[in-house]
Amino acid sequence: MPNTIPVVENILSANDQIATQTRAQLDRDGVLAINVMASPGGGKTSVILKTIEALHDQVRIGVMDGDIVPLDLEKIAELGIPVSLINTGGNCHLDANMVHGALPSLQLDALDLLIIENVGNLICPAAFKLGTHLNIVIASVPEGDDKPYKYPAMFKGADVLLLNKMDLCEYQDFNVDYFRHGVEVLNPGLAFFPISCRTGEGFDAWLDWLRDRVTQRSSVG
Amino acid sequence: MPNTIPVVENILSANDQIATQTRAQLDRDGVLAINVMASPGGGKTSVILKTIEALHDQVRIGVMDGDIVPLDLEKIAELGIPVSLINTGGNCHLDANMVHGALPSLQLDALDLLIIENVGNLICPAAFKLGTHLNIVIASVPEGDDKPYKYPAMFKGADVLLLNKMDLCEYQDFNVDYFRHGVEVLNPGLAFFPISCRTGEGFDAWLDWLRDRVTQRSSVG
Repeated sequence: MPNTIPVVENILSANDQIATQTRAQLDRDGVLAINVMASPGGGKTSVILKTIEALHDQVRIGVMDGDIVPLDLEKIAELGIPVSLINTGGNCHLDANMVHGALPSLQLDALDLLIIENVGNLICPAAFKLGTHLNIVIASVPEGDDKPYKYPAMFKGADVLLLNKMDLCEYQDFNVDYFRHGVEVLNPGLAFFPISCRTGEGFDAWLDWLRDRVTQRSSVG
Repeated sequence: MPNTIPVVENILSANDQIATQTRAQLDRDGVLAINVMASPGGGKTSVILKTIEALHDQVRIGVMDGDIVPLDLEKIAELGIPVSLINTGGNCHLDANMVHGALPSLQLDALDLLIIENVGNLICPAAFKLGTHLNIVIASVPEGDDKPYKYPAMFKGADVLLLNKMDLCEYQDFNVDYFRHGVEVLNPGLAFFPISCRTGEGFDAWLDWLRDRVTQRSSVG
């Protein structure tokens, strides 16, 4: 269906224009926005919850939740921070229009960090800029060490990569060197943190990295 | 963007028409076709490889591989059965046109079972009929027990559900009853097999189920 190609291009171009507007608004209010992406069950919500718990007395955090069925929203709201639900209408990814439309539901100038939880999907979200400053990709050990080779776009567009569920490494044939080699080819020098939400392993290094980005947010992205 | 809705409807309608043609061709040649769907790393390839190993001396099997980067194709071809690569061009799901276009690459009247490996994605593939007889959905324990609640369309459209990586249950907080309840609400009475590709747990029951469907293939779907 070659006649569909221009339509896709137009949609992406319109998307990028809206993303640019969102970015300008975030920068004006001094908010660092991060786009958190992973497979279903990769650990987006667990990472976000644990990150908020560790940082919310130092950093003013808000959350936009774009998951298809927002079970996770309540868990986040229980932490007492502002949350906004994006109704994706069953869509497989967030787009710039959804995020831009949700901006007024949060008081941006009262935030340092806006965490956007994308839909659980290792493919489609990679194609849609949201206007965020950083793409956070979470892979997890049980998904296998071949994921960078099979889903290259997601890893290519990442600004930081968390490898979650490291506590399951001893029960899996997961070759961290093979995984990292695949990432390095796509995205040389990518910041990489092996973590476990269950044991807390590696979390301090990730938090330090993120805290630094929040501090320097006027110059990120 | 309300003006995009008719476009999507037209695409799906065209898709369904092609799927109907594919189904007719499969039925004419007496082939049972299954559409295997899962998250990235859920275990599609492992389940397919193990299923082929167990059945290929009783059942004439062919494979279409729709994964984005076809690393898995070689593993399947090593088993000496006919395989066909579908180039999805980075797309996030197979559609009927891709499958229909790949049919001539396999000698259908020499097959009993056609296994189609869809793209690793728990959302988009659910919306596109391929002309197959059965939707095989694979979930896996490390993804968490909330997946039916968060990705309902995939579970609603399943004809059989495999819950893979049961060997990891003891290291996870996975409540099988909660998972099954979510599935039952969406798809009452759905055939359900807890399995482990690693230990072989539960595989015989799944193989019996599939072997029965192949035997009765003229009346399935």
